[in-house]
Amino acid sequence: MSDFVPPVADLSFVLRRLAGVESLTGLADFADVGLESLADLLSEAGRFAAEVVAPLNRVGDREGSRLVDGGVVTPTGFAKAWQQYVAAGWAAAPFEPQYGGGGMPWVVAMSIYEMVSGASTAWALCPMLTQGAIHLLTAHGDETQQSTWLPKLVPGEWTATMNLTEPQAGSDVGAVTTRAVPQADGSYRISGQKIFITYGDHDMTDNIVHLVLARTPGAPAGTRGISCFIVPKFVLDAQGRPGPRNAAWCISLEHKLGIHASPTCVMEFDEAEGYLIGEEHAGMRYMFTMMNAARLGVGVEGVGLGERALQQAEQFAAERRQGRAGGSAEPVAIVEHPDVRRMLLTMRALTEAARAICAMTGVAIDQAHHDPDPAQARRAQARADLLTPIAKAWSTDMGNEVAHLGIQVHGGYGFIEETGAAQHARDARITTIYEGTNGIQAIDLVSRKLPMGDGAVAAELYAEIEATVESLGAAGLAPESAALAGSLATLRAATAWLAEHRSTPDDVLAGATPFLRLAGFTVGGWLMGRALLALDGEDEAFAARKRWTASFFLTQLVPQADGLLPAITAGAAPLALP
Amino acid sequence: MSDFVPPVADLSFVLRRLAGVESLTGLADFADVGLESLADLLSEAGRFAAEVVAPLNRVGDREGSRLVDGGVVTPTGFAKAWQQYVAAGWAAAPFEPQYGGGGMPWVVAMSIYEMVSGASTAWALCPMLTQGAIHLLTAHGDETQQSTWLPKLVPGEWTATMNLTEPQAGSDVGAVTTRAVPQADGSYRISGQKIFITYGDHDMTDNIVHLVLARTPGAPAGTRGISCFIVPKFVLDAQGRPGPRNAAWCISLEHKLGIHASPTCVMEFDEAEGYLIGEEHAGMRYMFTMMNAARLGVGVEGVGLGERALQQAEQFAAERRQGRAGGSAEPVAIVEHPDVRRMLLTMRALTEAARAICAMTGVAIDQAHHDPDPAQARRAQARADLLTPIAKAWSTDMGNEVAHLGIQVHGGYGFIEETGAAQHARDARITTIYEGTNGIQAIDLVSRKLPMGDGAVAAELYAEIEATVESLGAAGLAPESAALAGSLATLRAATAWLAEHRSTPDDVLAGATPFLRLAGFTVGGWLMGRALLALDGEDEAFAARKRWTASFFLTQLVPQADGLLPAITAGAAPLALP
Repeated sequence: MSDFVPPVADLSFVLRRLAGVESLTGLADFADVGLESLADLLSEAGRFAAEVVAPLNRVGDREGSRLVDGGVVTPTGFAKAWQQYVAAGWAAAPFEPQYGGGGMPWVVAMSIYEMVSGASTAWALCPMLTQGAIHLLTAHGDETQQSTWLPKLVPGEWTATMNLTEPQAGSDVGAVTTRAVPQADGSYRISGQKIFITYGDHDMTDNIVHLVLARTPGAPAGTRGISCFIVPKFVLDAQGRPGPRNAAWCISLEHKLGIHASPTCVMEFDEAEGYLIGEEHAGMRYMFTMMNAARLGVGVEGVGLGERALQQAEQFAAERRQGRAGGSAEPVAIVEHPDVRRMLLTMRALTEAARAICAMTGVAIDQAHHDPDPAQARRAQARADLLTPIAKAWSTDMGNEVAHLGIQVHGGYGFIEETGAAQHARDARITTIYEGTNGIQAIDLVSRKLPMGDGAVAAELYAEIEATVESLGAAGLAPESAALAGSLATLRAATAWLAEHRSTPDDVLAGATPFLRLAGFTVGGWLMGRALLALDGEDEAFAARKRWTASFFLTQLVPQADGLLPAITAGAAPLALP
Repeated sequence: MSDFVPPVADLSFVLRRLAGVESLTGLADFADVGLESLADLLSEAGRFAAEVVAPLNRVGDREGSRLVDGGVVTPTGFAKAWQQYVAAGWAAAPFEPQYGGGGMPWVVAMSIYEMVSGASTAWALCPMLTQGAIHLLTAHGDETQQSTWLPKLVPGEWTATMNLTEPQAGSDVGAVTTRAVPQADGSYRISGQKIFITYGDHDMTDNIVHLVLARTPGAPAGTRGISCFIVPKFVLDAQGRPGPRNAAWCISLEHKLGIHASPTCVMEFDEAEGYLIGEEHAGMRYMFTMMNAARLGVGVEGVGLGERALQQAEQFAAERRQGRAGGSAEPVAIVEHPDVRRMLLTMRALTEAARAICAMTGVAIDQAHHDPDPAQARRAQARADLLTPIAKAWSTDMGNEVAHLGIQVHGGYGFIEETGAAQHARDARITTIYEGTNGIQAIDLVSRKLPMGDGAVAAELYAEIEATVESLGAAGLAPESAALAGSLATLRAATAWLAEHRSTPDDVLAGATPFLRLAGFTVGGWLMGRALLALDGEDEAFAARKRWTASFFLTQLVPQADGLLPAITAGAAPLALP
């Protein structure tokens, strides 16, 4: 048991009424997966997150993962929870039935992931990374590789890692120097060092499948010379069981600000046996095929951590009595103070908006992958491409703001580690950094995504937002309509300026981060506005809460982004010391 | 040695050209303290901070303070640095010569404190708390108390603590339950528990002077029944030397997010011997007399931590090579990337603006205490009262933003504790909480400070800002002038709305935090604007940097605060779930 209450009602609402997940049942791939009982599925997953995973969060932070005799020992209870996760079928839920998967849409998997991640982000990272590897192998592995590895990875019997970063490289993946030397039997010998490898080793399964970026002899420099390899911890024997220990070792663990339980490994590959995935030199392209899904996953972590921090702060504010309010003689619960209410409502509104953005992105990814109509699939892919950097960066920026507000609500107790509020902020801090820093996301948005279709992809989204502006006005929600209209006008002005300056890339890059923030508030405002228009037939208490958070988000938070326009349109010159 | 470079040039500029510290030499109390050699003094203090204190920051974080056999053991090197601090006379610098003080203005002491706090906030908290106690005893102790304790506290031979908070009370000081029972000899027996007592015990001096809030028998409820007592760790013998151990014990240390080296004690007073300061039931009033100074000190910590984080991020960005820019073939230092430049420049501009606000507040405190003309002193006191919550809350909010940008500049390395960037953010996190949470500061600003003189105190400040708007325009700085004018108009509109709603306090309180943020950006913009107008005769390289940061702050950051108006003027109703 724990005090984490899975946000099933809001997830269900967002999926049904905003993201239109039921429309996915019209796609052949999802016709039989039982989306009509979505709320039940989410409830069950939420129960797992709350009862099995959430209690691990504090112990995981305190104990951390440790490197003992060349192997990583995870905190008390982590391995057992993993076995329960596998046994219940949650690991397999979003993958193709062919390899034991549940065939669920990715957006549903992400909703489950939000709850698991809110329960314990450090624990949830293990399935997260494994999902990425499954995507890559499903898309690019050959038949033998798929039939060898996927039946183990899909149900979660084994886990996987992604080995990109090297000490000298950071976000600059093209600088990879790990070598892969071909052998007579068709395999490769992989040698090099990788850093920041999440769950690079652990004691929860009896094998680990490393996906490793490396260079073959004579490969071209930069990203075009990178190939992708499977490097198992244990090389398989003839029966496909873990055999000899491969030369892929965790040689040290990072001492981190947060997610202490998630082992962040320095991995040493010393002529380790590996198998080329797909074609040589195509490794970066393969990585990109799973990037939207992985980046969305990190955005969802921001939502999950925000939800967790919110719940803890709301509980504290309801119980803690201090100060007078409204002429009371006795101390009141601090939630009675308007300033505390503002903090809590800000936390709630930001979390709900981020959840909606992530769900819209997830549905677009599903449509892109599963719509049989190529034009529709392309359109959905473009929408997913546009929204992904916003979903990743804005949701994690907001997750951090929410977690810090959570500390603030606790006052002095927020600074004491036993309270737990600080852990959420420490854990959230990585989400703006990994899977491409939020600066990289912003650069991706302004330099690759906005120009798609010569601006048509963004323009189409803006037209939908404009329709919501009008619908809000028609529904008598004038302040909400006006706030969204203002933000949309600012966003369009910013977009036009960036388009005009495409020939001077530094000017565009200089405005990237404030542009992404503005886009997040506008898209969030759009979805909160659509929520206001989609409350017919919903539970009345739920509808009242949503009106409260959505109106607050639109009328009080969205306008704060309007002032970003000067920063977006100032160009690069003012950023350099003259 | 360390890589912390004391920001002497900017401190000196701010003191001379913005805060007008030289005008203080016209006051009798400061006529002979040598303000004409201010830059030398700051350089010397900066050298102490960089060479003696800064190297303690990391070891202090790693080791932390520990409770061993009933006494607190501070980290390696802390006690020795304290002795050097005392020997060099820095502890005594800002106090009255009568008790061995250097007679320096408080604003100069705060400039020194900024550097010491930037060097190691956890170390600097010990002098900080002692200064508060000296202020209180100087203002309210009787002659015997002053001659007994001040000659020890002023030079730093002993340190002091402030014991306000109790487990059930938090920010609600009126709820204090610690008891003080009068004895036949005129002393009192103090019993109760206090929490969050900074440096409540340590091993750096041979006595500690606790100032403790407690209730005498029959005292009225609430803040009007609180008295203030001196409770020494060791009761003095007949010669005034530390004698018998008093029953004032640290019974546990908090396990905190940051400032690990600063022992945060739970203090148990068990019939401890204590001496009443001033009159019974006047304890809260006494506390308020030192509150502006102490709150400004915390604001200054935000500046110091911001400066430290900025320097570390600038150094990393200059050395770390990654990615291409401007068509380069080889990886460039990441400072070449516009997005990284934006982060660094934002860090620098926010830090400089906060420094200027703190200096203006400090000079007002000095004038209030030392101007022989009562009308001038009152006017200065009102200005200090108005600016203090802004200096405290805005500077620490910005210190946190700056420290988090510092992590972000480091990418993945920022999340690794060994890098040190995360420590700045962990340490900064307390500054928005203690000495009155930033929410309390905002409430103080809108409900006590704005109404001063029926709004005249704020109006006078706004008129000065308006004069700067005009001067900027006359100097040909149209964009800077326009940005400040916009922000001032917003601030005036917000102020007018709050004044109109004074009869419904919850509506005023609901807008408190966004109002304070807006006020901080406007006042910061005013001072950055004044800096632009005060560069004649300054070193040209310095002037170029200041033009760069001040213009950026005004034209790109200040406008972001304009969007706060809807949140300030929405009233309390939208914050409550209908």
